[in-house]
Amino acid sequence: MDKLHIIKISGNIIDDEKKLSSFLAAFADINDKKILVHGGGKLATRLAEELKIPQQVVDGRRITDAATLKIVTIVYAGYINKNIVAKLQAHHCNAIGLCGADGDAILAHKRQNPVMDYGFVGDIDAINVDLLKNLLEKNITPAFAPITHDQQGQLLNTNADTIAQELAKGMSNDYEVTLIYLFEKNGVLSDVNDEDSVIKKITPPYYQELKEQEKIFAGMIPKLDNAFAALQSGVKKVVIGKAESLASLVDGSSGTMISNE
Amino acid sequence: MDKLHIIKISGNIIDDEKKLSSFLAAFADINDKKILVHGGGKLATRLAEELKIPQQVVDGRRITDAATLKIVTIVYAGYINKNIVAKLQAHHCNAIGLCGADGDAILAHKRQNPVMDYGFVGDIDAINVDLLKNLLEKNITPAFAPITHDQQGQLLNTNADTIAQELAKGMSNDYEVTLIYLFEKNGVLSDVNDEDSVIKKITPPYYQELKEQEKIFAGMIPKLDNAFAALQSGVKKVVIGKAESLASLVDGSSGTMISNE
Repeated sequence: MDKLHIIKISGNIIDDEKKLSSFLAAFADINDKKILVHGGGKLATRLAEELKIPQQVVDGRRITDAATLKIVTIVYAGYINKNIVAKLQAHHCNAIGLCGADGDAILAHKRQNPVMDYGFVGDIDAINVDLLKNLLEKNITPAFAPITHDQQGQLLNTNADTIAQELAKGMSNDYEVTLIYLFEKNGVLSDVNDEDSVIKKITPPYYQELKEQEKIFAGMIPKLDNAFAALQSGVKKVVIGKAESLASLVDGSSGTMISNE
Repeated sequence: MDKLHIIKISGNIIDDEKKLSSFLAAFADINDKKILVHGGGKLATRLAEELKIPQQVVDGRRITDAATLKIVTIVYAGYINKNIVAKLQAHHCNAIGLCGADGDAILAHKRQNPVMDYGFVGDIDAINVDLLKNLLEKNITPAFAPITHDQQGQLLNTNADTIAQELAKGMSNDYEVTLIYLFEKNGVLSDVNDEDSVIKKITPPYYQELKEQEKIFAGMIPKLDNAFAALQSGVKKVVIGKAESLASLVDGSSGTMISNE
């Protein structure tokens, strides 16, 4: 099976033009097949402020009302996505920018929650594996904005981590998939204040141990739970690390690797 | 050769939600292979006003400065394009939204003009026929936003009529291409005040005659010149008519047909 790297970048890279540029150069240099997934960044919030669109937050969770959906669609699927694609093209990486509606790439439904209405937020039902295989076989690199659709004409705001995870699961029958989450730190740290305390490898029994010893800080737990869920669904390995170290994350010499073995 | 319809819609349809909806339903109903090209509409102007971005106009021509490029990218390639794609998906038309950077679909260069600087405006160099053939053969329908790129990382604002024309020319070696321009009127009128005076068919000698008799109003001349240029490059026919009549424009029972024979 061919290798496929699915790489998710978050706001701290997107918001920093220089960091984004060097990340995209390193991404373009990956020889294996690859898919990029990007989140939002501060631009959407700033645009909403300039347009005086109030951000609805309930219990610490942002609600995607119609006006906010419009903002995230134009910023994520328009500005950020197309600029990333144009820059990857400049690095001779033949990228194609997609949201979930494009080619019916990611089908979702509006989140149903008995307690609160999240607004136009999508939970993923299906990945269009045929579309992505066809593009990858033509050496075209999909770059995903975190917007999906419901096949009824409605766009939906969808968490980029979840998109990366579902893509990784969906593609794992056809490719040897590595799912790479990029964030601010060098990897999962055994001491949150020490950037050098990167845990090289986490297996399921070691994860239990780390949790029992309370060595894993709270924000990492959902990320790691998701990583192990991805492994359960056939993803070969999950790597967590710093965007600036992309090349060494890909070759396994930096970051934290999460795997079953 | 398979038939391919390349259909360009302009602002008057995009700005009217009901008209756009029924147009997209009719577009989805076309059985032959098809490509949609859309222009802008008032939303970009309105957003620029709300964000207090001044519109630079020199000699009646709008200049695309960096701030304006950002606005047209987010509105055309983000909001309008993704909403059109989501709605086509709801009509079971498997659309994929593209700008020229996506898959290197349309390569352009920044317009060089000795007299004035148009800003980030792109003149087209090449259409990626292989990409589009591959999508069309998979029954995927490209929907183009009027943004191109220069392969150096720069997005460029590009006239949607020109994009439609260049796509039509580029695809005409592989398909029997009909290029359809939709606008407010029923077709080319011999009397600009009489909607019923549609000229059914214009051939090159008849076009000369009409121009000599001054029966063609000024704004139509560049459109028709472009139509004949497209025919010269292998496009089978060009049809001009009203968006509301799409089905009858496709079957040839309404609008003005421009052809060599």
